[in-house]
Amino acid sequence: MLAEIITIGDEMLIGQIVDTNSAWMAQQLNLIGIKVKQITSVSDDAGHIIEALQLAEKRAQVILITGGLGPTKDDITKLTLARYFNMELRRDEATLNHVTALFERLKRPMIESNRKQADVPDGCEVIQNKNGTAPCMWFEQHDRIFVSMPGVPFEMMYLMDEEILPRLKRSFNLPFIVHKTILTANLGESFLAAEIEDIEDSLPAHIKLAYLPKLGQVRLRLSGTGTDEALLHEEISAFAAQLVQRLNKYVMAEEDIAIEKAMLNLMDQKKLTLSTAESCTGGYIAHLITKHPGCSSVFKGGAVAYAYELKESMLGVKHATLNTYGAVSEETVKEMALGALEHFKTDYAVSVSGIAGPDGAIPGKPVGTVWIAVASRKRVIAKLHTFGNKRLQNIERSATAALTMILNELKQDED
Amino acid sequence: MLAEIITIGDEMLIGQIVDTNSAWMAQQLNLIGIKVKQITSVSDDAGHIIEALQLAEKRAQVILITGGLGPTKDDITKLTLARYFNMELRRDEATLNHVTALFERLKRPMIESNRKQADVPDGCEVIQNKNGTAPCMWFEQHDRIFVSMPGVPFEMMYLMDEEILPRLKRSFNLPFIVHKTILTANLGESFLAAEIEDIEDSLPAHIKLAYLPKLGQVRLRLSGTGTDEALLHEEISAFAAQLVQRLNKYVMAEEDIAIEKAMLNLMDQKKLTLSTAESCTGGYIAHLITKHPGCSSVFKGGAVAYAYELKESMLGVKHATLNTYGAVSEETVKEMALGALEHFKTDYAVSVSGIAGPDGAIPGKPVGTVWIAVASRKRVIAKLHTFGNKRLQNIERSATAALTMILNELKQDED
Repeated sequence: MLAEIITIGDEMLIGQIVDTNSAWMAQQLNLIGIKVKQITSVSDDAGHIIEALQLAEKRAQVILITGGLGPTKDDITKLTLARYFNMELRRDEATLNHVTALFERLKRPMIESNRKQADVPDGCEVIQNKNGTAPCMWFEQHDRIFVSMPGVPFEMMYLMDEEILPRLKRSFNLPFIVHKTILTANLGESFLAAEIEDIEDSLPAHIKLAYLPKLGQVRLRLSGTGTDEALLHEEISAFAAQLVQRLNKYVMAEEDIAIEKAMLNLMDQKKLTLSTAESCTGGYIAHLITKHPGCSSVFKGGAVAYAYELKESMLGVKHATLNTYGAVSEETVKEMALGALEHFKTDYAVSVSGIAGPDGAIPGKPVGTVWIAVASRKRVIAKLHTFGNKRLQNIERSATAALTMILNELKQDED
Repeated sequence: MLAEIITIGDEMLIGQIVDTNSAWMAQQLNLIGIKVKQITSVSDDAGHIIEALQLAEKRAQVILITGGLGPTKDDITKLTLARYFNMELRRDEATLNHVTALFERLKRPMIESNRKQADVPDGCEVIQNKNGTAPCMWFEQHDRIFVSMPGVPFEMMYLMDEEILPRLKRSFNLPFIVHKTILTANLGESFLAAEIEDIEDSLPAHIKLAYLPKLGQVRLRLSGTGTDEALLHEEISAFAAQLVQRLNKYVMAEEDIAIEKAMLNLMDQKKLTLSTAESCTGGYIAHLITKHPGCSSVFKGGAVAYAYELKESMLGVKHATLNTYGAVSEETVKEMALGALEHFKTDYAVSVSGIAGPDGAIPGKPVGTVWIAVASRKRVIAKLHTFGNKRLQNIERSATAALTMILNELKQDED
């Protein structure tokens, strides 16, 4: 079963918006055994939209369309869909009522462009969009299913979760697809590949291994397709176990989760608490952690100590330490971690101080110099990293390195 | 002049990776007057790649390809490109030397899959990739330019900036394209559209207006194409001035920058300092700010006070206040902002306390309830927001609302 995703909107093609919808949709489709053949972004242009629909229809049986349904003038998607399916536009009563109720609830005046949101091609099935004003439209033609959804991510996600995915599952007799992901850190893609070459070569044709690298991390993903779900799970688990055993110390999680979530899970399980003391990462580590619901059982809080004074007042770093060794030093970063441990009363604390760039380099400490420390009741350790010269990348790599360092400390404390 | 972007890699189609490359590339191409007609993501499959190249070649003159050049086995891009252009693969001496030097510098052993990275279709121009091992390849055929680049974002970005964009500029005689973006907040897309309908209707055919909405913000982007650059700038500026005058209080910036950057610029200009006191946003506001180089002139740091105890110890929130009114209350959020102002010694402080969800709702305070306060030497104000039930969205909307609130306070202090 193949699907294609078509995103409509000039905002994608001028690069003002990153298409995060398609990746999410692809993930969800994969989970129910529908493979995405192609993702296509086209402009708000009738001819181009029609060409994309025609080509997608040749390659796939499910065509999911997002975008082009906003209330502003440049939106021509509905007219084009009507033309493609040889339908007229009609004003849908249920949608108009829904839009009207929404505006009344928000106590906002309604204008004609809002009412026009209720226009749909006469012949599609209208699925109400509870989170917005643009309706979702389901078309069936030539044994294909076409669904047009709004491009606003949370509106699309809700519609997919609640309506589209369940309907697709009911519409097709799908084969089983089983994925298993292993999160590794601290070893590059080619070295991982060399380490596990024999395991990879022994995989049967219906099981594939993908390498999904990200700064400092590589995800290994086994994917199997078949008709016997239990057997598939068994096979995939056996190969996963081989990979985990071989890569042992590089394995951070045996599921497809973020590295900070792996850390949260392990700490939660051990009933340990954590605080952060961030300088160059500027709150990014705390943000990564607090993205996850339920993090408060582990994470108590932290300091974003950007200025010298705040390193002293919030974390108790000694003035003399900062003066003698500088903010980016083993001594400072250790005092930051110990200060967080003490002031925020947690079992573990992690601290980061570095030169994210592009400015700020000093003799002997180029941009990309980052010190990271982890303190626990048992010890405090610090490590120097030399990353590159890109600010955002340095922030991200520092965060990954810090989280990896906590995970390694937790594992070591287990031994 | 039209371009197309083709991204190769199953990781995109299974949704493990969000395609951020294409948006960035599209932005850069737009800036030099090359319009992106389509963005296509295809699988690591020779037939599919060839079909995508053939179709792209019909629609555009520049075809930029990213991905599919990693050292692991599933990478077939180079073989497919060789087939498409009817070339043989050869091992490129310069690339091999570069890869070898890189491995020596990193003191890492080299394996055959690393050496194979130096294989290129015989007939393309090889452009050295200083940041990685996969070479960049430039092909010319049928009056079209094809460029294959690695998919690792910073490798691709460096190659685009330093090599590809300058070469494209030299290869074509491009028309001028001028963009002007106005960042607005606090007014929805359809209301903005209604407010400025007459201005939009008066735009000449060569100037277009796009609405680029994001949670709580809408960017208005004027784009003009023509041969007289000075005249274009003048026309666009005149229309932009009309829009700014009409939308006055909703305008946060008259350039295409992030809202936190607009705030940083204004505060830097006024020589004001800022600190943060975050609960439910968990460091996200600090992260947004510290993404920007040079932010330290304004931003001193802040507290991520997730736990009650840290709200007291870091920010001096009174135990009685927390006990009486709860963490998510006007009283607490005001004390948090005032505490940050005092403890971190800044001119302004912003605080956020809310229920990001999905759990944590209490009677009278559903998920999405968020209090935000801004304190300055003059006053402290607080505002209640009722967002939705999605955690990440609540965090992002809270941050946008907090930044908008600071900007409005700054503007008010100007009056």
